[in-house]
Amino acid sequence: MATEFSAIELIIAKREKQELTTEQINWLVDNYTKGIVADEQMSAMAMAILLNGMNRREIKDLTLAMIASGERLDFSGLPTPTADKHSTGGVGDKITLMVAPLVAVFGVAVPQLSGRGLGHTGGTLDKMESIPGWQAALSNHQMHDQLAKVGAVVCAAGSGLAPADKKLYALRDVTGTVEAIPLIASSIMSKKIAEGTSALVLDVKVGSGAFMKNLDRARELAQVLTQIGADAGVKTSALLTDMSTPLGNKVGNALEVEEAVEVLAGGGPKDVIEITIALAAEMLRLSGMPDVDVAPALQDGRAMDKWNQMVKAQHGDPHAELPKAKHEETVVAEESGFLNELDALAVGTASWRLGAGRARKEDPVQFGAGVIIHAKRGERVEKGQPLLTLYTDEAERFARAKDALVGGIKIESEVKSQPSLILDYIKN
Amino acid sequence: MATEFSAIELIIAKREKQELTTEQINWLVDNYTKGIVADEQMSAMAMAILLNGMNRREIKDLTLAMIASGERLDFSGLPTPTADKHSTGGVGDKITLMVAPLVAVFGVAVPQLSGRGLGHTGGTLDKMESIPGWQAALSNHQMHDQLAKVGAVVCAAGSGLAPADKKLYALRDVTGTVEAIPLIASSIMSKKIAEGTSALVLDVKVGSGAFMKNLDRARELAQVLTQIGADAGVKTSALLTDMSTPLGNKVGNALEVEEAVEVLAGGGPKDVIEITIALAAEMLRLSGMPDVDVAPALQDGRAMDKWNQMVKAQHGDPHAELPKAKHEETVVAEESGFLNELDALAVGTASWRLGAGRARKEDPVQFGAGVIIHAKRGERVEKGQPLLTLYTDEAERFARAKDALVGGIKIESEVKSQPSLILDYIKN
Repeated sequence: MATEFSAIELIIAKREKQELTTEQINWLVDNYTKGIVADEQMSAMAMAILLNGMNRREIKDLTLAMIASGERLDFSGLPTPTADKHSTGGVGDKITLMVAPLVAVFGVAVPQLSGRGLGHTGGTLDKMESIPGWQAALSNHQMHDQLAKVGAVVCAAGSGLAPADKKLYALRDVTGTVEAIPLIASSIMSKKIAEGTSALVLDVKVGSGAFMKNLDRARELAQVLTQIGADAGVKTSALLTDMSTPLGNKVGNALEVEEAVEVLAGGGPKDVIEITIALAAEMLRLSGMPDVDVAPALQDGRAMDKWNQMVKAQHGDPHAELPKAKHEETVVAEESGFLNELDALAVGTASWRLGAGRARKEDPVQFGAGVIIHAKRGERVEKGQPLLTLYTDEAERFARAKDALVGGIKIESEVKSQPSLILDYIKN
Repeated sequence: MATEFSAIELIIAKREKQELTTEQINWLVDNYTKGIVADEQMSAMAMAILLNGMNRREIKDLTLAMIASGERLDFSGLPTPTADKHSTGGVGDKITLMVAPLVAVFGVAVPQLSGRGLGHTGGTLDKMESIPGWQAALSNHQMHDQLAKVGAVVCAAGSGLAPADKKLYALRDVTGTVEAIPLIASSIMSKKIAEGTSALVLDVKVGSGAFMKNLDRARELAQVLTQIGADAGVKTSALLTDMSTPLGNKVGNALEVEEAVEVLAGGGPKDVIEITIALAAEMLRLSGMPDVDVAPALQDGRAMDKWNQMVKAQHGDPHAELPKAKHEETVVAEESGFLNELDALAVGTASWRLGAGRARKEDPVQFGAGVIIHAKRGERVEKGQPLLTLYTDEAERFARAKDALVGGIKIESEVKSQPSLILDYIKN
């Protein structure tokens, strides 16, 4: 029989900066999932964790307890290894769409359970759902089947995975306790580990458009994430990548699918290609595959073939025309000079306000809404030259979208140096 | 129209050690009382306050907002000044029972709203209710009337007084956020100020049997309490008094009434008499009364007359026999020597377990249960001499009550010095 504790004694222990034991953490998560530990107790605990922290063992135990609260998928029966990647969220971040088929080309299966977007960063499912016919929901059996046949799947996470995390995440969202690294890290890792991948590459975004605004905090999060992976027996590494300006030239649901297809057809923007290749190579490396240059697979149609199979397997038509927005409006350079700032948060918020994102979980998204970027940060621009085109189905959205851009675009006479795209690599 | 805030932004502000404005605190308390700010949000806020603190202005604003959440009594129409005393709770603390009539003798009215006990310290209403016929509930009009006619009233606080505090106190109780000085202080003071007294003397207990275990924390609480009083226009001072050993010789509901009557009849234990006189004198002094020796009123029957009037006014029979427990058991000295330790928490817990206190609000109490103390701390005792007699209606309770005494009684060959009864005096 499990040892019994009281929620109050555990809250007080953490409040007094004490370490919680494995048994205490298991008890807490189990009883929170069952509704025996009340929301108001868990939010006091979350605040105590946010302010007093948790050590490595406590974070591992919290993650494992959240995994144990639900089902855990198992792809060990597949003939191929499995690897997944997780991004902490950015503007124009459509990398999953190319990485999944690209890694599958090289014999590593990608079992990606994704979510929908909330706020200024888009969700992978919203992007995929802009493809006519494509279905996000798969049973565990269908997922396994598609991994065996195609080698890659992007689908909706079922409600059976880490239910404690779902409950705790919703609570943190309304109680000012989102920004606690032990809670962020255990939330991400519990879902990814429960998903059944045997290797995991984390793309920890840093900058205005990301959850982590500065490199130190992002590095701290990456350290904790990779430690949990190591402790839980999942090969894990992290790239820290720049999110101070949008990734690629297209932001929005169908617009990002369009850009993904450009990359899979051998074209596309340089920054998107660079991160796609870096993440795919790292996923293969972690899975123990021999070193291989993945770039040619984007040029010779192998990755595109996988993409088409992936989309079709979920009833999507990869050749159908993507949804287009009804209205567009162009933002031009107000002067000539160097585009020293094209802020990720500003562009992401504009795209969100145009209808590409949602403010509440139950809101719909506009598949065609978003932003096309005509000049990248650091480039020379001339007065009157188009910088951005804004797209929406509702023209009255343009005004607030343009408000979001105020201060986010800077044109100066001297060019400023730009941060590297890949800022750091972390592995435990 | 009131400014609108969001609970999350206020929680984050306090989490980040920012000061909350008056408008923010008013908004928070008002919307928490209305149920717009949810319990899980308020508990995260309470934890942030516990860990990050509040400054003097914030604590004053919190207190005033809690007062404003309900009705405020007004005794300014009485011909006499009003003064009350509040104890932070101790073992054998029956001082209210003598202080109320004693102060009334000297022309200052005592409007005391009391509560029931929870845990090892008893509640004044539980004690008074052991008097056959005595009724705790009075309307505001009845209370005013009794103050005018008798000059002293001890009754139950109505639900209209500081409802925000009631709600927050219940929440703190289950979320590990009781021990925050800003929250403790605003809770005590909101009720006492709303009660309408114009002077207030606080008896802040210090030691094992008290909420504050050490002098520094108790002094900090006393400072904050008296500051709130000063800021809210109520003349307030505090005595810090020892609660490392029980007060007096009797602990339990009817047993404490019995001892109170002994004191009012000119007898009773020296420590109880000393604190009664000190608190009564301070209440009179704060009310601007001329210096007078109150002790004779305990000897000459004046305080007893007031007590009898007080009890009768609430339908009690001051001459009725008090309830007696069905069973008793004696604890004797296991060796000869000096009784260097007779721990307040140990005796309080024993009395609680004997049935004098309750574990949950809805539990009944046994009026006759409790402990009679035959040897006070510091006294010489001989092996086999009775130290305590335990009383209960349910004999099976003796075993756990005696468990609570383990380690709480120490008899040694050398006598140790004892702390003073009155440890400090604080006034702003």
